Amino acid sequence: MSAYDELMAFQRQTEALGQIAGRLGWDQETMMPEGAAGQRAEEFAAMESVLHARKTHPQIGEWLAKIDASTLDPVSAANVRHIARSFERSQRIPPKLAEAIAKLSSSAQRIWADAREREDVAAFLPALEEMIALKRDEASALAQGGDAYDALLDDYEPDTSGEDVAATFAAMRPRLVALRDKVMGADQPPELKFEFDEQKQMRLARSLAKTFGYDMQKGRLDKAVHPFSSGSGDDVRITTRTALTDPFNSIYSTIHETGHATYEQNIASEHLLTPLGGGVSLGVHESQSRIYENQLGRSRAFTGWLFGQMKDAFGDFGVANEDVFFRTVNRLNKGYIRTESDEVQYNLHIMLRFDLERDVIAGKLEASDLEEAWNSRFEADFGYAVDKPSNGLLQDVHWSCGLWGYFPTYALGNVYAGCLYEALRVARPNLDSELAVGNVSGATEWLKDAVQIHGGLYRPTELIERASGLVPSEGPLLGYLERKFG
Amino acid sequence: MSAYDELMAFQRQTEALGQIAGRLGWDQETMMPEGAAGQRAEEFAAMESVLHARKTHPQIGEWLAKIDASTLDPVSAANVRHIARSFERSQRIPPKLAEAIAKLSSSAQRIWADAREREDVAAFLPALEEMIALKRDEASALAQGGDAYDALLDDYEPDTSGEDVAATFAAMRPRLVALRDKVMGADQPPELKFEFDEQKQMRLARSLAKTFGYDMQKGRLDKAVHPFSSGSGDDVRITTRTALTDPFNSIYSTIHETGHATYEQNIASEHLLTPLGGGVSLGVHESQSRIYENQLGRSRAFTGWLFGQMKDAFGDFGVANEDVFFRTVNRLNKGYIRTESDEVQYNLHIMLRFDLERDVIAGKLEASDLEEAWNSRFEADFGYAVDKPSNGLLQDVHWSCGLWGYFPTYALGNVYAGCLYEALRVARPNLDSELAVGNVSGATEWLKDAVQIHGGLYRPTELIERASGLVPSEGPLLGYLERKFG
Repeated sequence: MSAYDELMAFQRQTEALGQIAGRLGWDQETMMPEGAAGQRAEEFAAMESVLHARKTHPQIGEWLAKIDASTLDPVSAANVRHIARSFERSQRIPPKLAEAIAKLSSSAQRIWADAREREDVAAFLPALEEMIALKRDEASALAQGGDAYDALLDDYEPDTSGEDVAATFAAMRPRLVALRDKVMGADQPPELKFEFDEQKQMRLARSLAKTFGYDMQKGRLDKAVHPFSSGSGDDVRITTRTALTDPFNSIYSTIHETGHATYEQNIASEHLLTPLGGGVSLGVHESQSRIYENQLGRSRAFTGWLFGQMKDAFGDFGVANEDVFFRTVNRLNKGYIRTESDEVQYNLHIMLRFDLERDVIAGKLEASDLEEAWNSRFEADFGYAVDKPSNGLLQDVHWSCGLWGYFPTYALGNVYAGCLYEALRVARPNLDSELAVGNVSGATEWLKDAVQIHGGLYRPTELIERASGLVPSEGPLLGYLERKFG
Repeated sequence: MSAYDELMAFQRQTEALGQIAGRLGWDQETMMPEGAAGQRAEEFAAMESVLHARKTHPQIGEWLAKIDASTLDPVSAANVRHIARSFERSQRIPPKLAEAIAKLSSSAQRIWADAREREDVAAFLPALEEMIALKRDEASALAQGGDAYDALLDDYEPDTSGEDVAATFAAMRPRLVALRDKVMGADQPPELKFEFDEQKQMRLARSLAKTFGYDMQKGRLDKAVHPFSSGSGDDVRITTRTALTDPFNSIYSTIHETGHATYEQNIASEHLLTPLGGGVSLGVHESQSRIYENQLGRSRAFTGWLFGQMKDAFGDFGVANEDVFFRTVNRLNKGYIRTESDEVQYNLHIMLRFDLERDVIAGKLEASDLEEAWNSRFEADFGYAVDKPSNGLLQDVHWSCGLWGYFPTYALGNVYAGCLYEALRVARPNLDSELAVGNVSGATEWLKDAVQIHGGLYRPTELIERASGLVPSEGPLLGYLERKFG
């Protein structure tokens, strides 16, 4: 066997073990008995320890040294690039630091959940402070003299810098604020006042997942507290949740997760259990979930069809016609919570977190300053004050479990989705008439061929550029939003 | 850290990984999407490879060499005994042989399932032949000059020999045959003719699991094709199945699996994720499931209460009174299938397999002889001919997936259950009046304290002797059966 073949055989087992670890996470959120939490933490730690040992195994370095990259075909070269990147990153982090972060991520998440429950920022601060210290150490170990925040961002969105993101956000912010103020100033449709049977909601969710191309033979849909997609290849599972008076919670979280899940399901089977067998970056992943959810799922054309589906399922639920329904689905709210935000304001939430966490990693902000910084920034951006910590600093899990540099990928996903949607409309001039009869397959097949099937073969921005013919920028997204909401 | 502490820390991770592998099996039977089977096989293989590497890790030998067993407390000594035993066994098997068996076990199981479906023994024979050759090699590598069959049996029931089992079976067989002929000659109650709503069956199953002490906070009950119990410690899951016209399928498989599962749940928490944290042997495990199912669950006293529960759940289902119900539950059938057999004939099925597999391992029987040997033995023991391979040689999965030496543990479980039941009746003189009102906790608490709580601390026969005050023998079981059925 060649060094490449040996490396790939080893990697294949690592990928399979990674899938098992992911499924353990799925089980925890959907099936695990409550009393098993303590034992499960030990099981996770054991699995993480096995995975960490494999990812940092010295033999990988030896195999890599023996491989002449210039002789490889593009798929093999991409595999080697992914493995080398992951190996080099892991080599830079001292084992004790990696262990400390893993341990704190687990305990701080529980502390955060308790603090959020009790609206008690002070209870979370010591863990947050410790996490910040560790993440600064990690960033500096990874950066090796380069920009510390970039080094963290690179884990989630390779080949993008904090400076690029900041420039994109600077261009987006005034136009989004102007758009928000304009829409908020106009008439908004009334909120729904109807109880939507939750079993019927689940049936509709299942049907919508299939409509958007989710393969139930290689996945399943369950209920969980937080919607998520989990797994790659032939076993990609999604969850959703239902709310009695808000059917859009279940509908749009299902369509969103279906975007993530079909991306994984549609990757060419030759990449199964290789580094190319998963979505290439969080931003590209989010571009799929967001275009499914928003540009397709919240379009005037599709919501017209969806309105009929909902009347069939629930009877008259108090919305007069398709136009009112479209405006109800796309209603702007004065809220605090990122995950419940509309298309216009969502990115403003991300910018807030990005600026704060970038300052933290740069040493310009400390844990003890974060609540005040958050609240004053929120009031400046949204025009009203945060009413309680669970609507402010304590609303997201990310910082407690070590996910620093992760937030901007949500907004990059929207930017990428904007580019892809522009190209999709050109490629499928009849898109709206297809969506108007609930036919999404033209759009999803285009996305499959343009983006999903390639898995990790191309770099993120290269992939978006190949797929859309556009150098990724905020322009198409803003144009779309202004046309839709303005 | 001492060598013992280091060994135990390593072992604890191995145990945690073993739990994950077990849960992967549970997932496969209950939740896995159909299309994920191929990927799952790779995931399993990767997990098995990790576990095998840990179980055979040379460092274990070094730690063991450094530990002075005479200085250890009883719990530590038992832990070391288990680890040393497993390590020594694994050292004796050449890695290539272990790999060949693992690979064949997986593929032969699929071949067996197909062959059974198509009633095609010939299609299974090549795989069976290969498996027999490998198991003979394994047995001879393990036995190191001793008895080959004993070496295999030792994996499932330590400290018992094929000769001991044969002697026990020789004493049991004539009395069981005489009892069977006597009962079969007498009037049998009619079969049930009623359709039992399957959702109500599942509700009853859940309620019965709790009645028998199953802790739903540390487990869950789902439907699966084959009932099983899976996991140890704080996450022990069971499955059951329902049949529209046979409620006893669900009821007694649930009670049976509850016996296995509560054994695991009731082990002292100090043994969690250690070698003592699981049931000590398959025979002892089966003693718990069988005493729950039969001596308790099929007793006249308990079935009286159960009859009332079933009338409450299903209305009049065509059984006149408690006495007829008791006889219906304990009806003897002219069947072929081990798992559907009654208490009297069950052990006759086991003896057939035990004698055949012992002859195979000894080289006295070949794969190609097995069908004829099975069929003639079956006719001699049961008085009628096997009608098709799925009712004969192809009925059980065990031989296809490498479980040779496993069958006798089912009968040993019955023998142990007989001893425990004799002691239980002495310890709880009011047992029948408790069972008659559906109060099983007196019995299950006794079993917990006498057997379950100890996990792997004592050797199997030592444990049964401590618990029952009896040297394990077939006498108590036969006495119980003759009193009940005679």
